[in-house]
Amino acid sequence: MNLVLVERDEISATGEVTLSGPRAAHLLNVLRVEPGDGVRVGVVDGPCGVGTVRTIEDGGVRLSCVFDSATPPRPSVDLLLAVPRPKGMRRLWAQIAALGVGQILLTNAEKVERNYFDTHILSPATYRPLLIEGLQQARDTRLPVVSIHRQFKILIEDRLDRLFESGVRVAADPSSPTPLSDVVRAAPTGRLLLAIGPEGGWNAFELGLLEAHGFQRIGMGPRTLRTDTACVALLALAHGARASSDFRRQISD
Amino acid sequence: MNLVLVERDEISATGEVTLSGPRAAHLLNVLRVEPGDGVRVGVVDGPCGVGTVRTIEDGGVRLSCVFDSATPPRPSVDLLLAVPRPKGMRRLWAQIAALGVGQILLTNAEKVERNYFDTHILSPATYRPLLIEGLQQARDTRLPVVSIHRQFKILIEDRLDRLFESGVRVAADPSSPTPLSDVVRAAPTGRLLLAIGPEGGWNAFELGLLEAHGFQRIGMGPRTLRTDTACVALLALAHGARASSDFRRQISD
Repeated sequence: MNLVLVERDEISATGEVTLSGPRAAHLLNVLRVEPGDGVRVGVVDGPCGVGTVRTIEDGGVRLSCVFDSATPPRPSVDLLLAVPRPKGMRRLWAQIAALGVGQILLTNAEKVERNYFDTHILSPATYRPLLIEGLQQARDTRLPVVSIHRQFKILIEDRLDRLFESGVRVAADPSSPTPLSDVVRAAPTGRLLLAIGPEGGWNAFELGLLEAHGFQRIGMGPRTLRTDTACVALLALAHGARASSDFRRQISD
Repeated sequence: MNLVLVERDEISATGEVTLSGPRAAHLLNVLRVEPGDGVRVGVVDGPCGVGTVRTIEDGGVRLSCVFDSATPPRPSVDLLLAVPRPKGMRRLWAQIAALGVGQILLTNAEKVERNYFDTHILSPATYRPLLIEGLQQARDTRLPVVSIHRQFKILIEDRLDRLFESGVRVAADPSSPTPLSDVVRAAPTGRLLLAIGPEGGWNAFELGLLEAHGFQRIGMGPRTLRTDTACVALLALAHGARASSDFRRQISD
């Protein structure tokens, strides 16, 4: 935990927060804070700052916080993901949030098992703490916006233009020879939507519908990866290519 | 499983292999093979080919194999990894093999807990099947060579030049502004050794020793990632930058 995230309603009018549970345990047992110490704090979807430890009582920690850093920008990459099997999805939540995504659109596809939608892994009570865990790891406060779409066709045809208004759309397809970095280099600013299919891939109809709605196919070479590995790998490549384009733009400015 | 890997001693003089256990179960229950069907096969550290299903009996599958494709080249990226906590390491084995590494050097560091070395996660009986699982996913046959080094200083000072004879050495360091792709662009061929520290980072002595032995520091931006996420992310970036350099070289040839 590199940042302690708190919810807005946990903060008193005078900027005090009393932590208990896992966050307090981390401060006490891992960081071994003492009264007077400062720790990095942030408000979910808000600014960052410093919390000064005031008292430690009964396993709880009272912090007096000043939130004086700006709210970080929303990550410029969004993810459209065919729901992976629950075990993989459970592992992904925190990793996705740590790598940085603006929103996560979870969707159906032919090769997604129907019962994947009925697991608690897709309920906010399960995924919100995991997303927060990822943000605390990466020192970000911007909680990815999650939406779940049981009908792929309705998502792509009717909802996507509202959910992702403008930007570049790419779909991972193992057979594509185009690397993601080429697409990012051609469109170095604005939002990027990265679609990743189910374990067995998108079917022909799904890939056709994605292409008809502006998705360019991108590949990662001849090695086929599990969805959860592909997801981390492609988010890393997307952010890497973006950072590298930013850098080139700054040099040429 | 996109490739069925067999050990050399499982193949009869006439090219027959009789599978039982998880590989047979996958062929029967997922791929639903019938006699006469062909499946992609490969020999661990050897060539690929096609296996034709001959008989199915008692949950076992007898294949008659022809290995006529060349042995794939060894991946050009090696990994030097401070042993992560066992839960993370268990998840990493298959992912590392799927992404592609030539060898994995596991090492100690100040912030590695001593008991991490005593878990069964580091025994070949545990990791070999996980590496094979990753290779079968990615359709590769080249088993990463694993070595375990309990003393970081001895590894870096006395053993590394033999284990990694020539190539570029980089060490992940969250504070470095240099992206991995810059280093790869400057050295587009040969081997690349990627060092990734423990959850709390390398200490100053360790980072100094790495630098004194030719490691350049590289970073991934301001977000601090968990070791297992960083490992997948950096391997993806390394292979992505290599592929992109290959492509540029082919164009300019």
